[in-house]
Amino acid sequence: MQRIMDLASIGAIDGGGCARLALTDEDAAGRDLVVGWMHELGMTVTTDVIGNVIGTWNVGKGLPVMTGSHIDTVRTGGKYDGNLGVLAGLEVIQTLQEASIIPSRPISVGIFTNEEGSRFAPDMLGSLVYVGGLPIEDALDIVGIDGARVGDELERIGYNGATPCPGFAPHAFVELHIEQGPVLERTNVKIGAVTGVQGISWQEITITGQSNHAGTTPMSMRRDPGYVAAKIAVFLRDLADRYGGHQVCTVGKVDLFPNLVNVIPAKAVMTLDVRNTDENILAEAEQEISQFIESLSKSEGVQVASRALARFEPVIFHPQVIAIVESVSAAHSPSVTRMPSGAGHDAQMLARVCPSAMIFVPSVEGISHNPAEFTDPDDLVTGSNILLQVLIELSQIEEFDS
Amino acid sequence: MQRIMDLASIGAIDGGGCARLALTDEDAAGRDLVVGWMHELGMTVTTDVIGNVIGTWNVGKGLPVMTGSHIDTVRTGGKYDGNLGVLAGLEVIQTLQEASIIPSRPISVGIFTNEEGSRFAPDMLGSLVYVGGLPIEDALDIVGIDGARVGDELERIGYNGATPCPGFAPHAFVELHIEQGPVLERTNVKIGAVTGVQGISWQEITITGQSNHAGTTPMSMRRDPGYVAAKIAVFLRDLADRYGGHQVCTVGKVDLFPNLVNVIPAKAVMTLDVRNTDENILAEAEQEISQFIESLSKSEGVQVASRALARFEPVIFHPQVIAIVESVSAAHSPSVTRMPSGAGHDAQMLARVCPSAMIFVPSVEGISHNPAEFTDPDDLVTGSNILLQVLIELSQIEEFDS
Repeated sequence: MQRIMDLASIGAIDGGGCARLALTDEDAAGRDLVVGWMHELGMTVTTDVIGNVIGTWNVGKGLPVMTGSHIDTVRTGGKYDGNLGVLAGLEVIQTLQEASIIPSRPISVGIFTNEEGSRFAPDMLGSLVYVGGLPIEDALDIVGIDGARVGDELERIGYNGATPCPGFAPHAFVELHIEQGPVLERTNVKIGAVTGVQGISWQEITITGQSNHAGTTPMSMRRDPGYVAAKIAVFLRDLADRYGGHQVCTVGKVDLFPNLVNVIPAKAVMTLDVRNTDENILAEAEQEISQFIESLSKSEGVQVASRALARFEPVIFHPQVIAIVESVSAAHSPSVTRMPSGAGHDAQMLARVCPSAMIFVPSVEGISHNPAEFTDPDDLVTGSNILLQVLIELSQIEEFDS
Repeated sequence: MQRIMDLASIGAIDGGGCARLALTDEDAAGRDLVVGWMHELGMTVTTDVIGNVIGTWNVGKGLPVMTGSHIDTVRTGGKYDGNLGVLAGLEVIQTLQEASIIPSRPISVGIFTNEEGSRFAPDMLGSLVYVGGLPIEDALDIVGIDGARVGDELERIGYNGATPCPGFAPHAFVELHIEQGPVLERTNVKIGAVTGVQGISWQEITITGQSNHAGTTPMSMRRDPGYVAAKIAVFLRDLADRYGGHQVCTVGKVDLFPNLVNVIPAKAVMTLDVRNTDENILAEAEQEISQFIESLSKSEGVQVASRALARFEPVIFHPQVIAIVESVSAAHSPSVTRMPSGAGHDAQMLARVCPSAMIFVPSVEGISHNPAEFTDPDDLVTGSNILLQVLIELSQIEEFDS
């Protein structure tokens, strides 16, 4: 708890939150603080070419099991998102050291660069480069919202390390994180054994019709993009209800033009956010939505153009790692449930190179990316104890099922 | 046609349109031009305290029949809206004079102040004050969007007349106007015999829910104002289809907050524009909509606040005047249909004090309040000839049915 509060004091903002955008002075100060703690714990610390910091304890006994997360935040972030996963890793090592327990393998704690993506796109940049998903040259050339270049900023804050990327593939990876959603709290379950990360389909739909006078244009002569947008939004909700399971659909952005009370809009622009844990179902949802829009555009006499904004396939975590998280949680917490993650995390990148999973603790009211982000300290402790036990059990596995 | 083009040259804007906002220098120059034409035709011209100009020919034979409209425009207006009704009145008088036909009563042509309401609210201000619907003191004190006061602007442009308001109630009133909608053109009918003006109900609906992450919030835990807004928009369309007849419903304005692709909105603000020619049906529609919103807000767990932006009862024109417009049109044009007006006009104010109706000519593609506003010159001629004949027939009626 003390480490969480100390780290949160760097870049502190009103309401108890943090602003430590990636590769800013605040991020550098946060990194310096955590790296100092790593050294105090006697860890071997390396920094790689994209600025990922990997601290390892108990070096020399084979491939490490790895935990970790990120310490950059969004512009109005909280104290727990990411930070918990890194600092719980240090807590695990300190606890093992104090109890004189030497695990079967080294334990590494990673601090991955620019997970949030608030300053530099894409998000999860550091872990993406770590696993070889993006060439380092391309990553260093990324320019942020403020015009700064990743490579220049890494050098400026002194985190342009020498360790090459892709980095070593750990024996296994597990990440402790706050849920950032309401499910655990609402269902009164303490631990989520995370089974994977939802696939994401983002589209922007532009509907062009005919602007007209709201009084003088009979209903039968309208080509109303606003109505078409509303009909699509209702269809998305109905589709999500019909599919059930982990299907979610959101229309978060709608703009009508000219947006006046007595004018039928000329144009509507809306976004569709569609997610599922199953790639086949996600693709099926996209297909159904596209057919619905095509048929609706014909019957309403409007033109529709769609543009993909983002598309990620679902990530499925390793069954053995999930099972270990679940069984350890059942033994060390009042309740556990298997659940997917609705948000992206560094663990989904590590899952490309080693058996991986995540541990979720509850977020009060599901609030995250907000200074009001909060998790009960008891839950933080429970999660950290489970992380310790999971790391121990992972280190004891000789070889994972493929 | 020449008078229309000459008047359109004052305040001309790109694309063939006009900008003659009420009581500006451009409006004054337009008035001066038309008043000059009235004098050339030997008309007796009076200006009243709200700046309405009434030109009368053939004075002394009882109460005049009146026609007319307005010559102010919206900021990006066309050549025909309003102007046609005033200039066709002059054309009627010139034609009667050239044919040496003396009608049974005087004929008055009115230029009513600030019909558009683009600079000073409310619209139809001059005709409203003319019929005693608003005290002159209140009208003179109205302040426009540019901070100018009606009374000061009338004085500045020299149209603060001495004739008191309310003005005399004419024997009857008929206004020739472009339809400003697509019905006549689409149905290939040349003349609309206007039966009345739709009643209008404008509401602003504010829906407050719970902003949340689009990925981590299951459908069952959402309180989504954007979905509620979409559902209301679809309900309005369904209601209009179900009611049929002259029912129209429009959602022209929707704003979501924070309006981001991956965030369930915290709030949605939307407008509802609901119109009908029948007050009972309009009230029934309002009632149904309000019940739907109340029930939906409960099932979706959102708060809804509604605010009335405008409410006008329908206006029903005089059956005898409508019948005369219809029979004259049947004799002097290829086709005529009875129809309501979806937009407001000075005739609806005059209808409070004398038997009134309107004559519509087609608007190409229904476009109005736009430089592209256009009516075929043949249709303008047909409409003006019908106006002449209607005024003659109205002047021959001794007494209207009450």
